[in-house]
Amino acid sequence: MAPFITKFEPYEPEEYVIDKKSGTKSPARLEKIAIVGSGSWGTALARVAALNAAEREGFDPEVRIWVREHEIPGRGKLTEIFNRTHRNERYLPDVDLPENLVAVPSLKETVRGATLILIVVPHQYLPGILEELKEPGLISSGARAISAIKGVEVVIQKGAPQGTARIYTYPSVIEKELGIPCTALGGANIALDVGRGEFCETTIGVLSAKDAALWHAVFDGPTFRVHPIEDVAGVSLSGALKNVVALAAGFVDGMGLGGNNKAAILRIGLLEMSTFTLEFFPGSSPLTFSHHSAGVADLITTSFGGRNRKCAEAFIKSKPEYSGVKPEQRGKTFEQLEKELLNGQKLQGTLTSREVFEFLEARGRLEGYPLFEKVYRISFEEMDPKRLFEDL
Amino acid sequence: MAPFITKFEPYEPEEYVIDKKSGTKSPARLEKIAIVGSGSWGTALARVAALNAAEREGFDPEVRIWVREHEIPGRGKLTEIFNRTHRNERYLPDVDLPENLVAVPSLKETVRGATLILIVVPHQYLPGILEELKEPGLISSGARAISAIKGVEVVIQKGAPQGTARIYTYPSVIEKELGIPCTALGGANIALDVGRGEFCETTIGVLSAKDAALWHAVFDGPTFRVHPIEDVAGVSLSGALKNVVALAAGFVDGMGLGGNNKAAILRIGLLEMSTFTLEFFPGSSPLTFSHHSAGVADLITTSFGGRNRKCAEAFIKSKPEYSGVKPEQRGKTFEQLEKELLNGQKLQGTLTSREVFEFLEARGRLEGYPLFEKVYRISFEEMDPKRLFEDL
Repeated sequence: MAPFITKFEPYEPEEYVIDKKSGTKSPARLEKIAIVGSGSWGTALARVAALNAAEREGFDPEVRIWVREHEIPGRGKLTEIFNRTHRNERYLPDVDLPENLVAVPSLKETVRGATLILIVVPHQYLPGILEELKEPGLISSGARAISAIKGVEVVIQKGAPQGTARIYTYPSVIEKELGIPCTALGGANIALDVGRGEFCETTIGVLSAKDAALWHAVFDGPTFRVHPIEDVAGVSLSGALKNVVALAAGFVDGMGLGGNNKAAILRIGLLEMSTFTLEFFPGSSPLTFSHHSAGVADLITTSFGGRNRKCAEAFIKSKPEYSGVKPEQRGKTFEQLEKELLNGQKLQGTLTSREVFEFLEARGRLEGYPLFEKVYRISFEEMDPKRLFEDL
Repeated sequence: MAPFITKFEPYEPEEYVIDKKSGTKSPARLEKIAIVGSGSWGTALARVAALNAAEREGFDPEVRIWVREHEIPGRGKLTEIFNRTHRNERYLPDVDLPENLVAVPSLKETVRGATLILIVVPHQYLPGILEELKEPGLISSGARAISAIKGVEVVIQKGAPQGTARIYTYPSVIEKELGIPCTALGGANIALDVGRGEFCETTIGVLSAKDAALWHAVFDGPTFRVHPIEDVAGVSLSGALKNVVALAAGFVDGMGLGGNNKAAILRIGLLEMSTFTLEFFPGSSPLTFSHHSAGVADLITTSFGGRNRKCAEAFIKSKPEYSGVKPEQRGKTFEQLEKELLNGQKLQGTLTSREVFEFLEARGRLEGYPLFEKVYRISFEEMDPKRLFEDL
């Protein structure tokens, strides 16, 4: 059972033009990168892509990133500060960004003319964004997208017979809505560490060897190691479901339990992630979960360091029976904690937990996923967190 | 790819005798448990086994544990204190032990008459112990052993041609030396948490369904969940090799690097563990590593909380180029750190690292295991720890 890394030749421009006078050869067209989303993870990925675009043949060095306009009192507009200081002061303040990464306040102007579009937004914002991007002629023909969105789309028709609920990955939603091919990116990547250039790995779920070469050229670097595999759904699902398991890991931390518990929860969570994906996306591979950065490694990172874990720990600690908080901070909902702890960033795990729960319930398959079920019930139905370990 | 948990019927004594007068039925013979080893892990497992032996039909309630005699100044002999206070004051001081767990200073008296023998000692001590246990008649015929030893036995004949080096798991060494069947126990188990009765899982690599039922009856309990699988070598190898990866995790911590790095090291480490086992023990299953507590879960626990990680972090921090220590504490060897930090317990990872390195070198297979190779060279050949991420 060898890892199934996709084989590919290093990226090269497909066509060249030769200048008749000087005889110099240059690419017939340049790939132009646009980044939709400027949270901490979007900014960290934008930095990696902009560093590569500036150096690699075949790429337009200017990389545009969509930054929602925002007035910082006494300092001016966020995009202007971004383009003057080359920092995203709101979401990744301590990281220097390359000068060829340009903040653009208009979503449409960000993607106009782009051939490679990274979409990295909280999944609740995606429908509105896709609506705007569907303007005829806005997206270049031949453009390609890559999704780093963590989540799933669940469709349950009220009153429809049980078993008709459907689930989609975001790459497939983007493909359908925008009519361009979409791959997936996921991996053990804490944004700040990537921003600082620390070594890490990421996985790209690709559609073909050509796709692998292209996205590898966009993101791979000496400290950001990109492995393409042919499993778009697996990479996408793993990125969504690991946040649900990270909530369980946060519950363990909040209850003050030890490493054995957390390891057991991670092991069982990884199994449910893999089983869920294979049950509903049968073309996926279990190796995506057991062997790749988007699977086991991302789960570990997220369950020890991510924001879902952090909020889930705070959620438990805010309960009257767990000590360490003042009475006025007790019994908080995830909605409150998100506002207090995340500085405007969005929590993905709770949303995904609800969607996965509703999907499994509508399909009559809850009993196959006791951990996913319990995370939902502890989060939203006041189940005693101590029951997390029952029936696993 | 379903998990391959072994199916078995719950344990029942094989034969009963009926008292003619009263008509009461009782087991024809009682299983008698002996624990060879009283470090923190041995004591925690002994506690679980003794609780079960006291309650389950077919078991002699007295469980004996071998405790090397030791005089505690002003307080008396360690075994006497153990049997009076029902605590192992040296290695698991905060845990109350059941009264039917009896410390015995003589190894031979511990195992005499036992039918189930748990061997849980640092692997460097095993040869001497087996020598003593080989006394004719000491081990009951029909006895069975289970090994919770973390390590491998490597045999390299000086001057022999390359490729003839051999590697053995400890269950196979014990089987060969004592002539009784031996299974393996491993899992995500920090001794103190198990001692406190926190929820955790463990994996038993068994030889048959009968074996599964028996050892499940010895160890399984409400908070100590035992899963038997038919992969003795996989469970045993995983327990040994995870300590090598935990050293790498400690190096990452010592260098002050983030969660991405550590997750990448764990992912690559898990792959090398699995690949190594399948290469040299082809009957093993990759699922042992990807799906079971003895694999991925134990690796996580050990790499975040275990003693190998702790000493490896201290090893890096003692180097002049890493801050945080006084000059007189700089540049320590693992031997020094083991003495200073482990209160008499032994480090298994460095020993296993050396054995695995020598074995791979003798087989000409180092290039297949770059992480294992680097852990050895950083530990013993002063390789710069920053090179850990090269060529992975």
